[in-house]
Amino acid sequence: MSKYWSKLAARLEPYVPGEQLKDKKYIKLNTNENPYPPSPKALEAIKAAADSSLKLYPDPVASDLKSTLAKNYGLKSSQVFVGNGSDEVIAFSFMAFFNTDEEVLFPDVTYSFYPVYANIFNIDYRLVTLQKDFSVPVEEFFNAQGGVIIPNPNAPTARAISSKDIERILVNNREKVVIIDEAYVDFGAESVVGLIEQYDNLLVVQTLSKSRSLAGLRVGWAFGQEHLIEGLTRVKDSINSYTLDRLALIGAAAAVEDEEYFEETRKRIMDTRERITVNLQNLGFNIIPSKANFIFMSHENVPAEHIFKRLKEEGVLVRYFKKPGIDNYLRVSIGTDIEMDTMIEKLVEII
Amino acid sequence: MSKYWSKLAARLEPYVPGEQLKDKKYIKLNTNENPYPPSPKALEAIKAAADSSLKLYPDPVASDLKSTLAKNYGLKSSQVFVGNGSDEVIAFSFMAFFNTDEEVLFPDVTYSFYPVYANIFNIDYRLVTLQKDFSVPVEEFFNAQGGVIIPNPNAPTARAISSKDIERILVNNREKVVIIDEAYVDFGAESVVGLIEQYDNLLVVQTLSKSRSLAGLRVGWAFGQEHLIEGLTRVKDSINSYTLDRLALIGAAAAVEDEEYFEETRKRIMDTRERITVNLQNLGFNIIPSKANFIFMSHENVPAEHIFKRLKEEGVLVRYFKKPGIDNYLRVSIGTDIEMDTMIEKLVEII
Repeated sequence: MSKYWSKLAARLEPYVPGEQLKDKKYIKLNTNENPYPPSPKALEAIKAAADSSLKLYPDPVASDLKSTLAKNYGLKSSQVFVGNGSDEVIAFSFMAFFNTDEEVLFPDVTYSFYPVYANIFNIDYRLVTLQKDFSVPVEEFFNAQGGVIIPNPNAPTARAISSKDIERILVNNREKVVIIDEAYVDFGAESVVGLIEQYDNLLVVQTLSKSRSLAGLRVGWAFGQEHLIEGLTRVKDSINSYTLDRLALIGAAAAVEDEEYFEETRKRIMDTRERITVNLQNLGFNIIPSKANFIFMSHENVPAEHIFKRLKEEGVLVRYFKKPGIDNYLRVSIGTDIEMDTMIEKLVEII
Repeated sequence: MSKYWSKLAARLEPYVPGEQLKDKKYIKLNTNENPYPPSPKALEAIKAAADSSLKLYPDPVASDLKSTLAKNYGLKSSQVFVGNGSDEVIAFSFMAFFNTDEEVLFPDVTYSFYPVYANIFNIDYRLVTLQKDFSVPVEEFFNAQGGVIIPNPNAPTARAISSKDIERILVNNREKVVIIDEAYVDFGAESVVGLIEQYDNLLVVQTLSKSRSLAGLRVGWAFGQEHLIEGLTRVKDSINSYTLDRLALIGAAAAVEDEEYFEETRKRIMDTRERITVNLQNLGFNIIPSKANFIFMSHENVPAEHIFKRLKEEGVLVRYFKKPGIDNYLRVSIGTDIEMDTMIEKLVEII
């Protein structure tokens, strides 16, 4: 605390990202990164772009990346917003679409950055309690006062919502923006990008960090009708004209264009997930059905916190949230087959 | 305008960056970019970093870049904050140190992003009128209600303030933060980084975009005592844990370490500036004494707007602000010697 801090800075409760330990070599299954390298074409494009043109500002409207995304997803460029990771895109969305005195709804168990955004931008919110099995009580999201944000699949539960259910939420919030955070959608859930033409209150947020193996490049985007994209752009242009550097713009476009690599690696992760789920169930784990690149699990006998600590000692990092309702669960990112088999071996010892 | 915009989004007046025309090949003297390429060592470091590690998140606390900057500027790592360009750093500073109902002071002729930040974060401000010759009336910045932000040298005037005068402003604002925006300081003005130990209300902001030829990489930083850096970090961690991608972190550190290249290119720009100033004066231009990588000038007979338009037709982009008090001035970035000589030739024709 400092007398020089603003009232805002004084009341913040910042988000805490997953541990990035450097004390030894870990199997990192704690921050939902992709175990496979980025598209070789993206890396080549970045290397080629590391030239004297870096003396010039990037394109502030990111035309090339937007048109690549638009083409890939069957949209118009004017329906695409890009930002410095989906975190920044969501932060700007809170500013662009939500108001101070109107309650925004999101699940009580969800991405822990949402209440942080609400706090910094002074936006009221109400947590909607998930069902016992962590499924989303759809009707509870109807007629939100200020708007809705839901990840699909949800994090850290990994459970997906059907696009039919999302459509019901859209229909029942005609006056407010509904943000579907599709950070993990490429691992088996149904995307609602196809509903954008139909619903002028739908904003879909995605990222390069998970299914495109580019967490280190910091690129995310939002899809929505033009008036929503314009709202986001107004916020961005009041904070930072150039949120994406030249290398990120070029690398992102190349990664999005490499469909073949994308399909191959995401399939590999889904295959590993299905195989490992069976192994874990055989060890006595309860696994929430996952459509993400991670699984959320608890053991019938051994407390999650104990498993978390023992795995760490054994060189395997997973994520443990010491929060009511989920404090007996572990969130485990899907690594390579070898990494996952090593984890299983360690778990056999621990349990 | 859309019914879905927040009250905030509806009242924004976003910043408009300098034109990035692509219709033909221009001599670009309109966005204060550096005409020389970035340090070859920085480019090499970026190429080497474009590997499979991009699948992993960047270091959220940017330890390596911070320690490189700290070493280079004789500070502790805990006195360094890094962000996505100095624009983002300044935006976060407005949030971290300024309050809604307390007037922040800045010059009436200055970087046009400041009122935009004040507007988006709902912070009162008062413009302090510069003297006729665009010098800063130092006493007018004493006892600010909410804080002070001044660029040194100022933009678009290019005029510098002495560190003695800045110290007077610091001494007379003991309870509020004084931000000195040193985006252009490396071209001949006096930096006040050395005053940080002495003044707990001083925040110094710098950037890679100008003197390090890396506008395309989006890296800026702030130096100040620990409690100020902590305030900034709280804001950042409430919006985006990872504002700098892996390539930017590595490229920035390599650029800062390459002191020799930095010294050589900034000297070259200052030499060109001094030579061209004389040429322009001989053509009848009034030049505000410049300590920046640009000059601010008006002609004794020919209106600035006319010169601006004619130069554009001739393939030379400079910046013209159609604003009261400066609407007969042009801001011209210092390019290479060849670029500047071409501009002089065109000006001889125009005048």
